[in-house]
Amino acid sequence: KMLRRVLCTVLFMGALPSLAEASQGHISVVLLGATGDLAKKYLWQGLFQLYLDQVSSGHSFTFHGAALKALEPGQRLMFDVLKKLSCPPDESPNRCAVLKDQFLKLSQYHQLKTAENYTMLNREIETLLRQEGLKEAGRIFYFSVPPFAYTEIARHINSSCRPPPGAWLRVVLEKPFGHDLQSAQQLAAELTGFFREEEMYRVDHYLGKQAVAHILPFRDQNRQFLDPIWNRHHVERVEVVLKETVDAKGRTSFYEQYGVIRDMLQNHLTEALMFLTMELPANVSRAEEVLQCKLQAFQALWGLEKNSAVLGQYQAYASQVQEELQKAPDYISTTPTFAGVLVHSGSLRWEGVPFLLTSGKALDERVGYVRVLFRNRAYCTQSETLRDAGHSQCKAKQIVFYIGHGALNTPAVLVSRNLFRPVMPQGSWREEVGQSDLSIFGQPLSDYYVYVPVKERDAYSVLISNIYHGRKDFFITIENLLSSWAFWTPLLNSISNQPLRLYPGGVENQHLLDFEMVSGEVAFTVAEPLELLNPNRLMPTDFRTIQSKFRQSPLVSAWSEDLISQLASDMEKAASRTVARSGQFHLALSGGSSPVVLFQRLARHHYAFPWKHTHIWLVDERCVPLTDTESNFFSLHNHLLQSVRVPYFNVHPMPVHLNQRLCVEEDRGTELYAKEIMALVANASFDLVLLGVGTDGHTASLFPHSEDGLEGAPTVVLTESPVKPHQRMSLSLPLINRARRVFVLVLGKGKHDITTLLSRVGHEPRKWPASGVSPSSGQLVWYVDYEALLG
Amino acid sequence: KMLRRVLCTVLFMGALPSLAEASQGHISVVLLGATGDLAKKYLWQGLFQLYLDQVSSGHSFTFHGAALKALEPGQRLMFDVLKKLSCPPDESPNRCAVLKDQFLKLSQYHQLKTAENYTMLNREIETLLRQEGLKEAGRIFYFSVPPFAYTEIARHINSSCRPPPGAWLRVVLEKPFGHDLQSAQQLAAELTGFFREEEMYRVDHYLGKQAVAHILPFRDQNRQFLDPIWNRHHVERVEVVLKETVDAKGRTSFYEQYGVIRDMLQNHLTEALMFLTMELPANVSRAEEVLQCKLQAFQALWGLEKNSAVLGQYQAYASQVQEELQKAPDYISTTPTFAGVLVHSGSLRWEGVPFLLTSGKALDERVGYVRVLFRNRAYCTQSETLRDAGHSQCKAKQIVFYIGHGALNTPAVLVSRNLFRPVMPQGSWREEVGQSDLSIFGQPLSDYYVYVPVKERDAYSVLISNIYHGRKDFFITIENLLSSWAFWTPLLNSISNQPLRLYPGGVENQHLLDFEMVSGEVAFTVAEPLELLNPNRLMPTDFRTIQSKFRQSPLVSAWSEDLISQLASDMEKAASRTVARSGQFHLALSGGSSPVVLFQRLARHHYAFPWKHTHIWLVDERCVPLTDTESNFFSLHNHLLQSVRVPYFNVHPMPVHLNQRLCVEEDRGTELYAKEIMALVANASFDLVLLGVGTDGHTASLFPHSEDGLEGAPTVVLTESPVKPHQRMSLSLPLINRARRVFVLVLGKGKHDITTLLSRVGHEPRKWPASGVSPSSGQLVWYVDYEALLG
Repeated sequence: KMLRRVLCTVLFMGALPSLAEASQGHISVVLLGATGDLAKKYLWQGLFQLYLDQVSSGHSFTFHGAALKALEPGQRLMFDVLKKLSCPPDESPNRCAVLKDQFLKLSQYHQLKTAENYTMLNREIETLLRQEGLKEAGRIFYFSVPPFAYTEIARHINSSCRPPPGAWLRVVLEKPFGHDLQSAQQLAAELTGFFREEEMYRVDHYLGKQAVAHILPFRDQNRQFLDPIWNRHHVERVEVVLKETVDAKGRTSFYEQYGVIRDMLQNHLTEALMFLTMELPANVSRAEEVLQCKLQAFQALWGLEKNSAVLGQYQAYASQVQEELQKAPDYISTTPTFAGVLVHSGSLRWEGVPFLLTSGKALDERVGYVRVLFRNRAYCTQSETLRDAGHSQCKAKQIVFYIGHGALNTPAVLVSRNLFRPVMPQGSWREEVGQSDLSIFGQPLSDYYVYVPVKERDAYSVLISNIYHGRKDFFITIENLLSSWAFWTPLLNSISNQPLRLYPGGVENQHLLDFEMVSGEVAFTVAEPLELLNPNRLMPTDFRTIQSKFRQSPLVSAWSEDLISQLASDMEKAASRTVARSGQFHLALSGGSSPVVLFQRLARHHYAFPWKHTHIWLVDERCVPLTDTESNFFSLHNHLLQSVRVPYFNVHPMPVHLNQRLCVEEDRGTELYAKEIMALVANASFDLVLLGVGTDGHTASLFPHSEDGLEGAPTVVLTESPVKPHQRMSLSLPLINRARRVFVLVLGKGKHDITTLLSRVGHEPRKWPASGVSPSSGQLVWYVDYEALLG
Repeated sequence: KMLRRVLCTVLFMGALPSLAEASQGHISVVLLGATGDLAKKYLWQGLFQLYLDQVSSGHSFTFHGAALKALEPGQRLMFDVLKKLSCPPDESPNRCAVLKDQFLKLSQYHQLKTAENYTMLNREIETLLRQEGLKEAGRIFYFSVPPFAYTEIARHINSSCRPPPGAWLRVVLEKPFGHDLQSAQQLAAELTGFFREEEMYRVDHYLGKQAVAHILPFRDQNRQFLDPIWNRHHVERVEVVLKETVDAKGRTSFYEQYGVIRDMLQNHLTEALMFLTMELPANVSRAEEVLQCKLQAFQALWGLEKNSAVLGQYQAYASQVQEELQKAPDYISTTPTFAGVLVHSGSLRWEGVPFLLTSGKALDERVGYVRVLFRNRAYCTQSETLRDAGHSQCKAKQIVFYIGHGALNTPAVLVSRNLFRPVMPQGSWREEVGQSDLSIFGQPLSDYYVYVPVKERDAYSVLISNIYHGRKDFFITIENLLSSWAFWTPLLNSISNQPLRLYPGGVENQHLLDFEMVSGEVAFTVAEPLELLNPNRLMPTDFRTIQSKFRQSPLVSAWSEDLISQLASDMEKAASRTVARSGQFHLALSGGSSPVVLFQRLARHHYAFPWKHTHIWLVDERCVPLTDTESNFFSLHNHLLQSVRVPYFNVHPMPVHLNQRLCVEEDRGTELYAKEIMALVANASFDLVLLGVGTDGHTASLFPHSEDGLEGAPTVVLTESPVKPHQRMSLSLPLINRARRVFVLVLGKGKHDITTLLSRVGHEPRKWPASGVSPSSGQLVWYVDYEALLG
């Protein structure tokens, strides 16, 4: 009956079917980049699916393909695509054929190049609506164009194509959205000039993948089972994986600029990761609550370092780039096509659990999954052969959100039978109960409860439907996007010169890309075979750390990350040796920003540091309460002490806050601290003092043009800083110079001038207190990064 | 050639072969219990092996079987055994036959019952030596008799059978050596009256098992590989397992008194555990160094609690006991025949690693092994099907010391090929390279490097050889033995009334005895099937915790372990709720001995306690430095704070030590602490105050017959204790009574009188300060264990 009515309408209207009965108003969908790859492969099909689903929703539709191409060739190209649209298997062929015909009639090509083109498009839409007597419901502009074109198009849409008041505008933005934090911020700022945040739908099409989209609902619906086990005490590791067999051939002009981290990890894998790690809001369907939890989860992530990732490039990539981008034969691409990244969250829930994110091109199989592996806490008294009979607690316990492809070749949710039978929404997921001799993650499929979607939906169809329904929770908010870039950008910067492991591609890769975790870092498990060594790879490893002299003392220099890791290792070595010899290690640490990275490195990578036998002293302190964020001790506590186990009695903050007042001379804080040192540190000679240097040449809290603490007895002094907070407490230079070891850490371009100056001047502590550092019988080592050393 | 000489000697000497050429002197071996089970099964064979090995060592031998039986029947019984001695497979049949004949001639039966018997034995030995003109090297007395006979025999040997000066005495003691710490100490004390420690060889025949004996040498010889991974960062778990298929039938008179923990865990499994966990001494062949490291390893073990073990009893055991011991049909045996125990070491190396000790009778297979499973730290980029080709890092990594029986049916050392190729002593272990389709611990045998002994030696042969060579490092020193009993006795006491899970035996056990770890405890994984429930089991679970009233306030009462676990849970609940509401939790804790167990429980079982948001205050303190072992804070730090993560700023020890002196009034420590409380605790109302009660009725450090701190403003006071150290600092009663919750913990028989008294008296804080505890608007709960409540 409906079919007949539709047919009548078509006959009656001629070119424009089914507009007249649109009681809910008209929706114009404009697809920018209508003849591009993505449009061809997914978007038109998604729009057609939208039409199939919503043709009798009460809305009427028109579809406007747009591109830079002139009308005639563009039109031809576009309709070639439209003619090939396929009917979904669950649709009756007759209905589909009729609706496809209508869809073609409702679709139109536009050249959108100049401002006039946009004005014209707007006028055509308005004319149509007027002619048909339709109320306008809204307009969707889908940006399937390179990001450099975003701003221009946005400007035109904003100035010429906004719908009238009462109708909505939705602009859909595809990735890539920026290529690092700064560019993403810039792009965001530009677009903010044209659209309001609620008008922008930033697509991550993995949020349309059914298995990914079901992570949060699954966690919500299975709270009773997951609440006790969804944490570091029960989860052994999490893997978020997208493997491709295809390579970048034909796409190198895009790929060479982005690489696998920007293409896959920053967006798709990160979103899946967030769904796993975020705290569950009370109501998972409230977009705002979900977003808040997600942003908190981002905050809890540990910063990535160079060695958080292993990187590879398939061998043929270089020649593909040379060919497609007309590069010289000696052109070396540093773009990774494979990455394995170890992510840690510092949240109470996840502390210590490794999250492994992996993606690559030219791998041995196409597959995507999110796998949560639980710790094995059971001991089976029964022998192995008998054990397989039942659902033994000794088998692996895992929950897998299988995104698709691979051995299963379908989206699925798998839950080990020895965990629990999950609650699944009956309408959209069904249990798969058939026989199969598949083995998934080391276990026969029969060991799992297996659920597959009742109706398998293409990700873009799902997303286009969500755009239509205004479900913003399926899209990436600007805060989310910038948090993700803020997380990934430091890694992208630090690996820009990293060597890439070459891999042959496909099954030939064998174990070349396997990697393992060591002390919070990752490394490939097998050594690089000689024949695959990148011949042109003269990378910084070759001059990783320079050993030299500075002010007559040993100098260690490297890029800052390598320098910090060297310094941390040297400190651990010193600590272990000292504890082995004397049973304790007295370490005096400076405040300031440079040591923060060092503290984090010590906390996260140096499990064997003898903290239990280490005494922590402060080199200097600001006269603020210890719990003030400006306090050196507070920073030390945040970045180091709260993560390691130094006995309470071995922690010695400076007594800047006595009798509820700050650094008042008569409270004798300096005397108190000096006495404590004399009482505990043999000969008042610290085992290691860590210092920094200020741009003015100060060190500890000993400032130029003052004599306080420069000479005399080894003691503790109150000093005045030129910058706020002015009052400071500090070890004196004579006390520092009694130390058995003094390490001075200097980081960053901003320190280049003072570094240069210090390399030239003699012992002039009154002008530059740092020049007075000169242990009387101990060892002095300068750790100066390349930026400070070379400018 | 040698054979001919031996034969000549035999012909020449008549009854006593090969004594004349004993240039190294003569050794007399006396086997007490010569006709018992152990002697029949192992010891005579071991002595014969000793003779085979040492016949041409330069020592001559005689072997003296002894028992209570009269000469004639004893002799007959003994020679029946000797005639059946078998020749080892690696011995030439001819030589063996000749030597067996000699061995029989050198052996003699003695009745040893009275003092005269011992004198006679001694005289016979002396006579023989004089007749043959032999120098005496030493005497070995092997005690293969029930332990109750030890003292009597020892007295006789000491008074009548000591060899002359210059010759040694070695007495060999079999297990069981005591049945708990006290009885072991008593037995040790008794024997010390007769023998010196270096004369006593306490046998644990598992130290003669080749795989067990090789644990330490393996660790030593493979230091280069193991050093980086033999720790909590790399080891996931360790299993020490001895499974038997036999049951206790025929041995119940022994077994009913001991049970599986005393029979297997306290000795064999514990020794293996120590070889794994102890620090490696520089020289593993120095017995003294090994012992020191072993004792330290014992010190580091966490105490066992009731829930550290799961216990079972095979169904037929009850009727076997009733039959063999002539018990009434309603006799209930509480002797476990199966135990799974979770052991934790608090050492830096092993903290957090679960050690699972398991043994039982009537299980599905006979097997013994020590298995070290390493964490899987690798991610294999390759799909599973391809992965098995090589030695993938993603396969399980384990080291197994296979004691014997089971699928392998030989002692062996297995090392996963993806770990390392171990260094093995070539003379005694050889690599097994043959094909096999065995699967061991989930992996094909081909995944391991497999080493088996070149010559498989029976444990008793090995031990007897070690006794002969005076290798005391293969025996259990008294310190070792007592450390082991000290470790196991608390568990044995706390489980004496525990319900046992009944199991049918053999393969029928299915998953009934599987168990799993939860928060540092163990529990069976499957619920007990109703048909196996022990019908007569009216165990303490039925009145686990009593809820009632005490002094008009809620009373919780139970056996002390249950009470502590209830209190810890209640504290966590209070903390979580308070943090959820107000963001922080102010907890004031008392000193004394009762809370120590509570602190340990909180540290080890309450992962979810919101420590990060908890402030720790002291209820009272002794006027000693904080690092003094008498300090309440020191104890709190040791048992709780060093294991959890309370931010430094949230820890508030009492300022008893200001200006380097203790509790001097003018230093105003009390004022300082009161001010700190006012500044941080809203309304000076602690969220929870934990108190104890002294036998004199004191609570906090508020003592009877003094008005200090009983009335007036809520403050902090200095008080005088009747016991040392006299000076104390304490919260005052009014300050305590402002708390939102006060929990009072009273433990032990010693508190029964004061508990009874307090239940009767009214508000009389001057006589009994504890009677003044009465929060003005908060909640008061009494936690009193059965011993304190019921006496």
